[in-house]
Amino acid sequence: MMKLKAMYSFLNADLNKIERELEASIQADDPLLNQASLHLLQAGGKRIRPVFVLLGGQFGTYDFECIKHVAVALEFIHMASLVHDDVIDNAKLRRGKETIQSKWGNRFAMYVGDYIFARSLELMANIKNPLAHQILADTIVEVCRGEIEQISDKYRFDQNLRRYLQRIKRKTALLIAASCQLGAVVAGAPESIHRKLYWFGYYVGMSFQITDDILDFIGTEKELGKPAGSDLSQGNVTLPVLYAMEEEALRQSIMQVNEATTASEMKELIERIKQTDAIEKSYELGERYLQKALSILQSLPRNRAWNALYNIAKYIGKRKY
Amino acid sequence: MMKLKAMYSFLNADLNKIERELEASIQADDPLLNQASLHLLQAGGKRIRPVFVLLGGQFGTYDFECIKHVAVALEFIHMASLVHDDVIDNAKLRRGKETIQSKWGNRFAMYVGDYIFARSLELMANIKNPLAHQILADTIVEVCRGEIEQISDKYRFDQNLRRYLQRIKRKTALLIAASCQLGAVVAGAPESIHRKLYWFGYYVGMSFQITDDILDFIGTEKELGKPAGSDLSQGNVTLPVLYAMEEEALRQSIMQVNEATTASEMKELIERIKQTDAIEKSYELGERYLQKALSILQSLPRNRAWNALYNIAKYIGKRKY
Repeated sequence: MMKLKAMYSFLNADLNKIERELEASIQADDPLLNQASLHLLQAGGKRIRPVFVLLGGQFGTYDFECIKHVAVALEFIHMASLVHDDVIDNAKLRRGKETIQSKWGNRFAMYVGDYIFARSLELMANIKNPLAHQILADTIVEVCRGEIEQISDKYRFDQNLRRYLQRIKRKTALLIAASCQLGAVVAGAPESIHRKLYWFGYYVGMSFQITDDILDFIGTEKELGKPAGSDLSQGNVTLPVLYAMEEEALRQSIMQVNEATTASEMKELIERIKQTDAIEKSYELGERYLQKALSILQSLPRNRAWNALYNIAKYIGKRKY
Repeated sequence: MMKLKAMYSFLNADLNKIERELEASIQADDPLLNQASLHLLQAGGKRIRPVFVLLGGQFGTYDFECIKHVAVALEFIHMASLVHDDVIDNAKLRRGKETIQSKWGNRFAMYVGDYIFARSLELMANIKNPLAHQILADTIVEVCRGEIEQISDKYRFDQNLRRYLQRIKRKTALLIAASCQLGAVVAGAPESIHRKLYWFGYYVGMSFQITDDILDFIGTEKELGKPAGSDLSQGNVTLPVLYAMEEEALRQSIMQVNEATTASEMKELIERIKQTDAIEKSYELGERYLQKALSILQSLPRNRAWNALYNIAKYIGKRKY
């Protein structure tokens, strides 16, 4: 399988610069804050949002010195939301590293998230385009709504598919949609183009999150950087769980899950879920979103970014971590 | 003593509209989030930031339909930071009402803060002036820094006056400075005017926070809406504490304060602090900032906003709650 980075090698120099911008922009006076922020950056990540921003920019007049602010800002917003998510989920590990909340406590993690988020606004202040601010502000409100829904929906096993889809839309898909669109918007691409990139990003984002939710069941601890089944044990009801609950016996067992469920009980339950067709059905729904993304791509002009977007979309449905 | 509201009665109609905008803009789909946000709004507050925004707007071309977004956004940023502060301080009461964190828990409070903050960005997206976005973003970064300093400085009795002043600058003064300035900026006032309004707001804000920190010692529980001495018992080292520590015996006692200090021990300590000249010296420093604010005001054009700013500044040093 082709490696992700090979799909947009023409962006490699710029992506290295983005990495250095991330480090430079997160610098703080406070030594503890600095340490925590650097800890987060070093935990890595696919930097998929900056990649989408830079690729979106290829559909207009690509100006790295301008677009870099948007790319870094979107990665920061994503990082800040992960830090707050880990507080909510009481998560100990992310990408194989200790989380901020596990290492320094909930309260400090809250402010690290706030700080990184504030930094993203500072970067966005460099962007003069009012539409870009409008899109970003609307996206952030929706991301916050998604996070609040994730709290209220925890351990609620009576939720339906629609509720799940709305939650992952807000939690993940809209920020990826905004990444694709904002890159094009700040590069001055016409509305007909950036609207399509929005929808491409939205469908890719839905597929991306569904794959994430599947991998949480079928990945190994090494691949995931955290124990398999973490979502369910934290009370997050994801697509494979909803499908698995269509079997009555399994439904009864899943509904017993609560904060006191032990690791060995959870392990057994996850095995039972994997033996149903829930994973397969989840892949099918993810695939449907992916096809929608590819279909939108067909109507976009062919350039080197087009090929990259095509390959990334294909990759996202098949990735292993 | 003149009532605060009487000082800007010409703004009454607009301030009533702001109150309704605050309610309308905070509306959420999620019933629990709605309840929490309304709970916060109903706890009231002086709405001093919206007042400063509208007054700043009088130094340019005042357009309520435009400036209202800034006024509401700044009140939301203030509210969001209070919600996160209450998480940090583990505060049970604010303005005589239960805090979000006490009523619904730390994690939910974290997201309520995030949500209200996101709402403020959505409102600011209505403002097309790039300078306004720059000022706001810079201010938010500083406010976050102030909040982080407040965590790292908790129960640190070895800090000096300079550190205290830097913290209240970031925590309070800069948001009030930005309120005064942003009102003028979006009203298209010239730089010579909005820079002065910034400094006026900065000095008033310093004086405001110093008064707040004094009131925490000398106010009654009824006036404060929370027990007197809350700051010190939460480990927040304020100006009266720093002055009181100049007396060696008191210094030794204050340095013993920690999370386990009982309410009766605290009560006794507060009485001892009140018997020193710490309160008086704090008032004197507050007064010095106030005089600087008034001196800047002298160089601003006289209009009805000028009189209001003069009276508010005078009021702030003398207020009882």
